[in-house]
Amino acid sequence: MQISCRVKVNMEWIDQDLRWNENTSNASYVLLPVDKIWTPVLVLDNAIDVTMKPYTNDVLVSKYGNVDYALILYIAVGCDDISLFTYPFVNGDCCVAINGWSQRGCGLTVNPFTNISVINSIQGEWKTVNVTIPQETPENRTCLLVSLSISPFSAVVTLILPSVLIMLADLVTFSLPVQGGERNSLKVTLVLSFTMFLLILNDHLSSGGQCSPILHYHFCFCLVNLVLSMVVSIVLTRLTMDNRFLPSKNIKTPQTTASLGQDEADLGVITTTKSSDLLSEVASLQKIVNFLENIDQKEQVAKSNEAFVDRLDKICFCFFLFIDIIYVIIVIIVTNTGICKETKRNIWDNEDLLDDHENYTYYSSYYYY
Amino acid sequence: MQISCRVKVNMEWIDQDLRWNENTSNASYVLLPVDKIWTPVLVLDNAIDVTMKPYTNDVLVSKYGNVDYALILYIAVGCDDISLFTYPFVNGDCCVAINGWSQRGCGLTVNPFTNISVINSIQGEWKTVNVTIPQETPENRTCLLVSLSISPFSAVVTLILPSVLIMLADLVTFSLPVQGGERNSLKVTLVLSFTMFLLILNDHLSSGGQCSPILHYHFCFCLVNLVLSMVVSIVLTRLTMDNRFLPSKNIKTPQTTASLGQDEADLGVITTTKSSDLLSEVASLQKIVNFLENIDQKEQVAKSNEAFVDRLDKICFCFFLFIDIIYVIIVIIVTNTGICKETKRNIWDNEDLLDDHENYTYYSSYYYY
Amino acid sequence: MQISCRVKVNMEWIDQDLRWNENTSNASYVLLPVDKIWTPVLVLDNAIDVTMKPYTNDVLVSKYGNVDYALILYIAVGCDDISLFTYPFVNGDCCVAINGWSQRGCGLTVNPFTNISVINSIQGEWKTVNVTIPQETPENRTCLLVSLSISPFSAVVTLILPSVLIMLADLVTFSLPVQGGERNSLKVTLVLSFTMFLLILNDHLSSGGQCSPILHYHFCFCLVNLVLSMVVSIVLTRLTMDNRFLPSKNIKTPQTTASLGQDEADLGVITTTKSSDLLSEVASLQKIVNFLENIDQKEQVAKSNEAFVDRLDKICFCFFLFIDIIYVIIVIIVTNTGICKETKRNIWDNEDLLDDHENYTYYSSYYYY
Amino acid sequence: MQISCRVKVNMEWIDQDLRWNENTSNASYVLLPVDKIWTPVLVLDNAIDVTMKPYTNDVLVSKYGNVDYALILYIAVGCDDISLFTYPFVNGDCCVAINGWSQRGCGLTVNPFTNISVINSIQGEWKTVNVTIPQETPENRTCLLVSLSISPFSAVVTLILPSVLIMLADLVTFSLPVQGGERNSLKVTLVLSFTMFLLILNDHLSSGGQCSPILHYHFCFCLVNLVLSMVVSIVLTRLTMDNRFLPSKNIKTPQTTASLGQDEADLGVITTTKSSDLLSEVASLQKIVNFLENIDQKEQVAKSNEAFVDRLDKICFCFFLFIDIIYVIIVIIVTNTGICKETKRNIWDNEDLLDDHENYTYYSSYYYY
Amino acid sequence: MQISCRVKVNMEWIDQDLRWNENTSNASYVLLPVDKIWTPVLVLDNAIDVTMKPYTNDVLVSKYGNVDYALILYIAVGCDDISLFTYPFVNGDCCVAINGWSQRGCGLTVNPFTNISVINSIQGEWKTVNVTIPQETPENRTCLLVSLSISPFSAVVTLILPSVLIMLADLVTFSLPVQGGERNSLKVTLVLSFTMFLLILNDHLSSGGQCSPILHYHFCFCLVNLVLSMVVSIVLTRLTMDNRFLPSKNIKTPQTTASLGQDEADLGVITTTKSSDLLSEVASLQKIVNFLENIDQKEQVAKSNEAFVDRLDKICFCFFLFIDIIYVIIVIIVTNTGICKETKRNIWDNEDLLDDHENYTYYSSYYYY
Repeated sequence: MQISCRVKVNMEWIDQDLRWNENTSNASYVLLPVDKIWTPVLVLDNAIDVTMKPYTNDVLVSKYGNVDYALILYIAVGCDDISLFTYPFVNGDCCVAINGWSQRGCGLTVNPFTNISVINSIQGEWKTVNVTIPQETPENRTCLLVSLSISPFSAVVTLILPSVLIMLADLVTFSLPVQGGERNSLKVTLVLSFTMFLLILNDHLSSGGQCSPILHYHFCFCLVNLVLSMVVSIVLTRLTMDNRFLPSKNIKTPQTTASLGQDEADLGVITTTKSSDLLSEVASLQKIVNFLENIDQKEQVAKSNEAFVDRLDKICFCFFLFIDIIYVIIVIIVTNTGICKETKRNIWDNEDLLDDHENYTYYSSYYYY
Repeated sequence: MQISCRVKVNMEWIDQDLRWNENTSNASYVLLPVDKIWTPVLVLDNAIDVTMKPYTNDVLVSKYGNVDYALILYIAVGCDDISLFTYPFVNGDCCVAINGWSQRGCGLTVNPFTNISVINSIQGEWKTVNVTIPQETPENRTCLLVSLSISPFSAVVTLILPSVLIMLADLVTFSLPVQGGERNSLKVTLVLSFTMFLLILNDHLSSGGQCSPILHYHFCFCLVNLVLSMVVSIVLTRLTMDNRFLPSKNIKTPQTTASLGQDEADLGVITTTKSSDLLSEVASLQKIVNFLENIDQKEQVAKSNEAFVDRLDKICFCFFLFIDIIYVIIVIIVTNTGICKETKRNIWDNEDLLDDHENYTYYSSYYYY
Repeated sequence: MQISCRVKVNMEWIDQDLRWNENTSNASYVLLPVDKIWTPVLVLDNAIDVTMKPYTNDVLVSKYGNVDYALILYIAVGCDDISLFTYPFVNGDCCVAINGWSQRGCGLTVNPFTNISVINSIQGEWKTVNVTIPQETPENRTCLLVSLSISPFSAVVTLILPSVLIMLADLVTFSLPVQGGERNSLKVTLVLSFTMFLLILNDHLSSGGQCSPILHYHFCFCLVNLVLSMVVSIVLTRLTMDNRFLPSKNIKTPQTTASLGQDEADLGVITTTKSSDLLSEVASLQKIVNFLENIDQKEQVAKSNEAFVDRLDKICFCFFLFIDIIYVIIVIIVTNTGICKETKRNIWDNEDLLDDHENYTYYSSYYYY
Repeated sequence: MQISCRVKVNMEWIDQDLRWNENTSNASYVLLPVDKIWTPVLVLDNAIDVTMKPYTNDVLVSKYGNVDYALILYIAVGCDDISLFTYPFVNGDCCVAINGWSQRGCGLTVNPFTNISVINSIQGEWKTVNVTIPQETPENRTCLLVSLSISPFSAVVTLILPSVLIMLADLVTFSLPVQGGERNSLKVTLVLSFTMFLLILNDHLSSGGQCSPILHYHFCFCLVNLVLSMVVSIVLTRLTMDNRFLPSKNIKTPQTTASLGQDEADLGVITTTKSSDLLSEVASLQKIVNFLENIDQKEQVAKSNEAFVDRLDKICFCFFLFIDIIYVIIVIIVTNTGICKETKRNIWDNEDLLDDHENYTYYSSYYYY
Repeated sequence: MQISCRVKVNMEWIDQDLRWNENTSNASYVLLPVDKIWTPVLVLDNAIDVTMKPYTNDVLVSKYGNVDYALILYIAVGCDDISLFTYPFVNGDCCVAINGWSQRGCGLTVNPFTNISVINSIQGEWKTVNVTIPQETPENRTCLLVSLSISPFSAVVTLILPSVLIMLADLVTFSLPVQGGERNSLKVTLVLSFTMFLLILNDHLSSGGQCSPILHYHFCFCLVNLVLSMVVSIVLTRLTMDNRFLPSKNIKTPQTTASLGQDEADLGVITTTKSSDLLSEVASLQKIVNFLENIDQKEQVAKSNEAFVDRLDKICFCFFLFIDIIYVIIVIIVTNTGICKETKRNIWDNEDLLDDHENYTYYSSYYYY
């Protein structure tokens, strides 16, 4: 992740070569063009892109050599310290390391109490909470701590709320009967709806940082849950049509089909003995009764089958409900205890500071020829 | 939010070092190259990115020292003052703070009546209504007020109209019977259609500013409403198949099933006494009648069940209709009363203006060596 | 809308300070480095972004002072004149105002017959038809008219053709019976398909300019039409199941249900008098006949109900067909008559041209020191 | 279409002013800073954007005045010559016109055998096959021919394969019965799936160039084909329910319904003569038989109706199969014969080369002051 | 593929012209402005875009002429060596070739032990594992090896897991009966869900490099598999309704329909002989029995038909299961054995190194005039 900001740094120093006494002039202040005098260059250790511009083209110099200078920095800084684990509920500090440079000890030191102000900070969905300059940084280092927090509303509306609602709808579809085909159709449409959110998720957040955001695991869980619940529902639908899985009822049903076959055999016999009218009448009626009883019996077998599957279905529902409750509890615990806190990286350059040189002369007056 | 514009600033000042008398030359005007004379640099306090170019490379100087200069500014300005709360019906003013600089009192002051004109302003779906220079700004500050308004048509076509139509269609699906499975199927497809708009919403507007846009809440409401209405419909479908929830009818139905069992028992007896033909014939007919009466009775039980569920369904429909009406009223009130007006941020730099220096000399002639 | 192009401007002028006579040298031509002599700067009044580069680093100067110079301009120009009303069938002219500058009358005038050629113009889905330099521009102004036209094929394939086909399919679904549930299911899927195109529409064209493109209205109309046709279909499905809306048939049906109740009452009586066999046999048969007649009667009531709804359905179909035909006619008329022609904006800077200065000297020789 | 590449041009020339003899120095080579000597500027006639950097800051100069110089060019070139007609199976050459400049004949000529190498070329899904310098270019022109080809795999996976599979699935759905409603439902879902690809197509390729890519026509054809096949299927479903379209069977069915009405009239008579038991018993049975025969007859009428529609359906299937085969043949022929080959545009600037100047002096030594 | 990084190169060299003895000054160190002394320019052979900035504006020079200099390079490097074949499980090294230049042997050599540190490297979903400077590079070449690996989690969540789950769901739908229409409807919805991922796939990875990523082949396989399984399911549904494909059963069913026709013929005879009541009663009952038997027989024929199709269905299921298992094994083998390892490209410039010049003088002091 990367933030861009526009920082104004007000600097003031004394340039011995720029002072004058009253013999030269009796003016107290002189405005000098900024590209004709020496000005310091700041070093940003963790910057990705920096553009520096003087605030004005003219610099105010007092007769004692005090130079009053302001610099506008357009900075892009990489913020790897902020863990996106609990996205979209993220707070974090991003350090913009504004320093002088101290190559071999002979360099420039920025006073940490320098007047630094962040004017504009653009970070997409991030919101700048406040900007502080901490005092506990290493010696000679100035770090501008930008506190950021994501506005979670957008991600909640487009990712979290819909996924929770679809999970809820999936649980409710268990109340539909297993047999009708309606339940499977609803469940597969819910899976289809859910995959739509993967499209949003895809361009919503990167998996950067040390830990992947828990939101990714959430979508994994939801997807597996939805597909499993659909698969279970399809298998249960299969069971209601299949008798092999119900041993106790199987003994009865072959008999009825056998008796039906027998009835048909009788029927063959009876239709040949058409002469005796009354008998045939009774037989005809008997066959009709057999036909209707047959339907009734099948219905009862199917019902006992359904009762068995319904019990299985209730067990499955309880299982998924249990899993969901456990999952919600785990998510709450994990996000609160903060398992995945990223350790602070050292953003400072590892420069060996030399101390063994006594004196040096800085010819800041080299522009004047 | 951020707007970009191209501003042309016409400036005129008197440079004492550039005037000449008739001894030097009798020309009234001289064109001088712009990089050889002193020109002021404007400061934009709330700019994110600024590029300044002189309008021409040659500047017209009169013999009295009047310099006629024009500057083209390509500015990107952050416009945090505009509240997106009522998106896509948003109007707002964006201040482009074009100033001189006044570090320690000794600086440059821009006359607010300077000739400033915005030539091109590009803001995506924003439309520039007009550009004014207000007079009530703090002392020495010039603010270019760019009045912006969003053309709401695109967002209405792709976000608001479809969501309203889907909500309407959802209400109409209540007219379908609870039993057929058709209603649930339609409702889940409507939810699927609706989630499609979350894809559009996702890249349409950011949740920036102090208040999240009401459109986000609208989509939350619609989504929850659609899913709840689907859940209610599924639960009602469940109720039509379940007798446990209808106590008054339950007393009757076990009797019929019991009598059916009894009939079957009778049937067992009767089929053994096949000898007496007429009796058996009557019995057969009786059984057929019983079978048909059974169907009839079941149908009636189901009907009374359905009637009960239909009443529940009507209550639910009225509830959702009521909620929707209340919601529409609330939305109208909230958008009109303007609950979430953002307070004006101070975009000016907090510079301490010193007054205690008497005189200063500006060596604007330093280019001439 | 904004176009980018690369323009090469060939210029030629006479610089009096650069000529030489044969005493100095007998060479006819000299190549001089471009940054050591004076060269004019062009002004583009309606440019958003301009980058100017000399075509070569060396400029050919004749001994009479003729300077032969070429400039490459990378220009981004805002083209607000082109109305997107009839998108994707759009033709338009975009004016690139290449001028000299005439601040206070003392400036640079570009001869309109200057050799200007557009080398590359990149405009996304726009195609450059031709480039002309019109003569009727205001005095001292040179306008490069770039004629643009959109290649409509891509938008036709992804937006217009699918929307027309879906509207057609929606009309055809009226041929399906109202009762089956199949029609509603197809219609809601068509609505779902249609909302998909809103995703494409969303990033396809901006609602810029004075008039919103008619394509936006087209999608509004299609969406409302599809949802209304779905709603009508659902309501008609409701009507086929409901008897309350059919007063003339209602008189008959309560009677039948009443007689059924009476039959049941009779049935209760008859089943108690089981002793008389023949009577009971006849009664049983009578009851079976009653049951079947009941089914037959219900079917006939449903049929007359359906006939009524079918007539309503045909009226609705004719209504939608009529609306569609009217709509097609209106679209054809509107796009042809050109209701929304944008008025030409004045892109020229409003500079007050001074005429009251007699003479001025241009020191173009200031580079030679 | 536009390609970007990084080209390294090694140049060598003799600068008479830079040679020295052994009196001056006995060194053979001198490294001179590149910005202190004259270096040529290359002209790219068809470039959209060019950035030139010297390869090194120091240039090797021999004592004979040979200058060894290398230039890094970052070039964006418009490649309008490549026809996207057969996308994603496209090969093409893109000319990068690297030239000297020859304004009025007095200019710079680049030796076509100059050492030019393309280091990096980035073109999105394009792959650089090889880079050649052809010899048949016009005089004094050097053209760098970059042979490009698209890797078709990605477009085949996401566009062509799915569209072919969906067309296949659409043909297979003709094997489903017209009556069930299942076929229409599958066909509309296939249309929905297909519209999804329009989303991909939308951002996959632009309709640039002279000819629109054949892939666009392919998607047009598929979409029209799918919707027409759905419409035909819906109309056939309608026909199975409607008797008006079957004249030969119509004669029979009104009779049956008329006889049914007659039966009902008889029935009214018979039910009043309840006294004669046997008669009424026979009549009751007769009515039951009539009821069942009625169902049987209706079924047979429906069957003959369905048989007729099935024949129509088979004709439609053969028609669509025939259309598809013809289409495949046409596509193969069109892509192979190369109907739409773009003619080479002239990318060279139309400069009038003057020949009438005899001699010129180039003051390349002007940097030494 | 392309990575961007910010590299800090610490350099130290001895500039003979910059040393001084104690007569000149007794200072040990001097800070000199960086643009007034000679500094080396690094050459990046495989860079796409390079921006070089000195770390500080002032350079520390010791009295022995040691110059301590640091350079910040913003580099974009093309990384064609990394094969995306096993995406998203990719590791790879990307070489950033930081060199001096050695045109004709007389150039600059970078010591490979130079202090180079990569500060920020931005590569989208890529993660920098570590940065090493290998020793086995060609002479005078320094290569900065950046080890990269993709975090596969995001692609697994949005591409691989859903595709595996949909394939699983497709296998499970085989457990549904062929007849109901439910299976086909589920399968076509699964195809629809799957095509959604092609949208994600489309903008997820480019088909760059020598080998297309295996993920593309995976989606091809899944899509073909899903559509084929849908087609097979539709064809099997067709078979359950068609008797022509079942020769052994066909002999029986025409008989029944023939006997039905015969019954009807009898029926015509019997209804004319209404006089004999008992006979007609028996005949009536017989006809009812015939009607019911007819239904029963049709059901049995359908059942034997279904049994045959069910066997076919099981064979198809086993076939698809077998294909899937084989596919999984092949994928595992292919990804592990690493079929498609890209060969290292030579990124070095092919410069002919001259050895035949003895001495050269580098006038690094040319800035002092």
